Amino acid sequence: MLAAILTLLTDFGLRDHYVGVMKGVILARAPHVRIVDLCHEVAPHDIHGAALLLAASYRSFPLSTVHVVVVDPGVGSARRPRAVEAPAGRFVGPDKGVFGYVLDEQPAARCVELRERRFWLPEVSQTFHGRDVFAPVAAALAVGLPLDALGPPVADPLRLASPAVEVLPDGGRRGVAIYVDRFGNLVTNIRPADLAPGPLLVEVGGQTISGLSPHYAVAAPLIALVGSLGRLEIAVPQGSAATTLGIGVGAPVAVRRKEG
Amino acid sequence: MLAAILTLLTDFGLRDHYVGVMKGVILARAPHVRIVDLCHEVAPHDIHGAALLLAASYRSFPLSTVHVVVVDPGVGSARRPRAVEAPAGRFVGPDKGVFGYVLDEQPAARCVELRERRFWLPEVSQTFHGRDVFAPVAAALAVGLPLDALGPPVADPLRLASPAVEVLPDGGRRGVAIYVDRFGNLVTNIRPADLAPGPLLVEVGGQTISGLSPHYAVAAPLIALVGSLGRLEIAVPQGSAATTLGIGVGAPVAVRRKEG
Amino acid sequence: MLAAILTLLTDFGLRDHYVGVMKGVILARAPHVRIVDLCHEVAPHDIHGAALLLAASYRSFPLSTVHVVVVDPGVGSARRPRAVEAPAGRFVGPDKGVFGYVLDEQPAARCVELRERRFWLPEVSQTFHGRDVFAPVAAALAVGLPLDALGPPVADPLRLASPAVEVLPDGGRRGVAIYVDRFGNLVTNIRPADLAPGPLLVEVGGQTISGLSPHYAVAAPLIALVGSLGRLEIAVPQGSAATTLGIGVGAPVAVRRKEG
Repeated sequence: MLAAILTLLTDFGLRDHYVGVMKGVILARAPHVRIVDLCHEVAPHDIHGAALLLAASYRSFPLSTVHVVVVDPGVGSARRPRAVEAPAGRFVGPDKGVFGYVLDEQPAARCVELRERRFWLPEVSQTFHGRDVFAPVAAALAVGLPLDALGPPVADPLRLASPAVEVLPDGGRRGVAIYVDRFGNLVTNIRPADLAPGPLLVEVGGQTISGLSPHYAVAAPLIALVGSLGRLEIAVPQGSAATTLGIGVGAPVAVRRKEG
Repeated sequence: MLAAILTLLTDFGLRDHYVGVMKGVILARAPHVRIVDLCHEVAPHDIHGAALLLAASYRSFPLSTVHVVVVDPGVGSARRPRAVEAPAGRFVGPDKGVFGYVLDEQPAARCVELRERRFWLPEVSQTFHGRDVFAPVAAALAVGLPLDALGPPVADPLRLASPAVEVLPDGGRRGVAIYVDRFGNLVTNIRPADLAPGPLLVEVGGQTISGLSPHYAVAAPLIALVGSLGRLEIAVPQGSAATTLGIGVGAPVAVRRKEG
Repeated sequence: MLAAILTLLTDFGLRDHYVGVMKGVILARAPHVRIVDLCHEVAPHDIHGAALLLAASYRSFPLSTVHVVVVDPGVGSARRPRAVEAPAGRFVGPDKGVFGYVLDEQPAARCVELRERRFWLPEVSQTFHGRDVFAPVAAALAVGLPLDALGPPVADPLRLASPAVEVLPDGGRRGVAIYVDRFGNLVTNIRPADLAPGPLLVEVGGQTISGLSPHYAVAAPLIALVGSLGRLEIAVPQGSAATTLGIGVGAPVAVRRKEG
């Protein structure tokens, strides 16, 4: 039998013991599972960033994969530990909105509240539910436990209030940067479907970019393109758009039809 | 047969080849072993930080796990390459004190000096014992070599001179911050057993905190709580206590009985 | 059957989804492969750094290992997706020179151009060939596909124009720092074979170092030694040579015979 894959996406960073401890708990319960680090460098408490990275990643994994997401500003408080099962994967974590994009894309997803404490660690702290609740529950799913054993169904998992793309009076669109990657590329909330066909002008940080580039290797100081997140990105070839323009998440980006 | 788990805890960071090379050496000798990165971002040469992270982690792993710790300010000099076998795990690394907490917690632990060079790489450099000595020895243990084959027993493995908690004249306790995690939480050397029952005042960085919080999700500018390391921590909910107070490792923290 | 090992060396960093997505693609195609992160913190677009880390690492892995290197300033542009098979390993990535040291060391290596699109993802973006081309091709090699199935042979894979060591009029050598590691050690392009026997003086950053140290644990403010990359290094014991001297990659380093 093939070992299940289990991915981890957290804001724990890699300089403390948090991630290693979760892996120990998982492997002690699901010794054959294969753990993949999706990312642990989500900015502390950045629900939206985690939701975006999860959405960008889960479809590349086998359908049986269990994705654990622990970005949890409210650990210990009134909160909603959840598991989700969708045709394209299973998901475990605090329901603070991190599953928002997945739920939008997977309408057949079912969600349960984690209530059956016998699948948790015997002693549950109030400060580290990644170790005490989510790791053992994910391990249980990975070795075959059905979703419904974990707790009662939830009808209304949290949707993410992601910033909407505005339609401008001239038919253009105004969006915002929602993510800055390691290369300084500014990823916006504008999707290809938002773009009118034909020549475009992209306005960002006081600059105007004419047309979309097919890729990053263009001899231009500033380019716009549709990147691997499936969204309009602003980039500086071999440099950082965020640094060059001095802007980041939340910066407005407008797209207009280029006048004939 | 189930593959053994082998964890790595180093100060090598992730931007060089050091960790990858150790993994290659391990997998070439123990092809079925499952390697887990505990942490590679220990501050360079920080023995105490490594000892603390190891103590916080090893009990979450299966008892058969081999934990490799390479934080080694004196690589190449007069030093003590060691392996330790305890009921709760096996441990390999330079004995500079990194096993201090484990030895305190595992009185039945046995320790040997690594002397049998046939379990090392054929050529041993003076600069990279993680690759040449500790990786191959750990791989040998993981595939079943008994501890005693590695070298003679050691009666006096190095205990860690960790800062003691002082008893104050008024019956309170004075400790120090011994670790700052990614979230800026200040972890102290004060354990729950050091705390008198009843209402408490915690003094740190010129501030006084009244009482302990059950978790981080409290609406207060500064809180004290017992965290996942089993020690008193100072935290700023959704912020950094270290940054807010402008203090770090070594900062004094006092706990007093709250007057009625 | 033993699962193949597949290593990843990129400049993607660990804070985005790029590495996790590649792992998903690989595991979906080669479910038994064991993925090892060699390094993802290569400086963005630093071909020479990647080539050096690869050269420092591949020989520690089993001969059947597939090494994937994605440092690709020109993704999407005219470029050369390649796979290399050598007695000591297999290699996949854009041929921008990252295989330079390997090709020097492995004269029997054979190289092909990746042209057979049936081994790629069905849809190939112009911005993320790590996911769309290199991950699936590496997975195919790992599960047994012969090199030649991937495309036609290439006679002239790119050699790396690495800085040469100059011979000085007095018989000494002048090289440069080519890498700075996490500890601030300055790694030069000078190899042991470049060094004359007998007492040496090393000149770097306005300082002169007398003789080579056997290892880093020497009571001296500044030392020179042959490190684990097999090259002359400049180090500050328990400190950073790069910070202390205020120099980095490209800084000249001279080695002379010590008079008398």
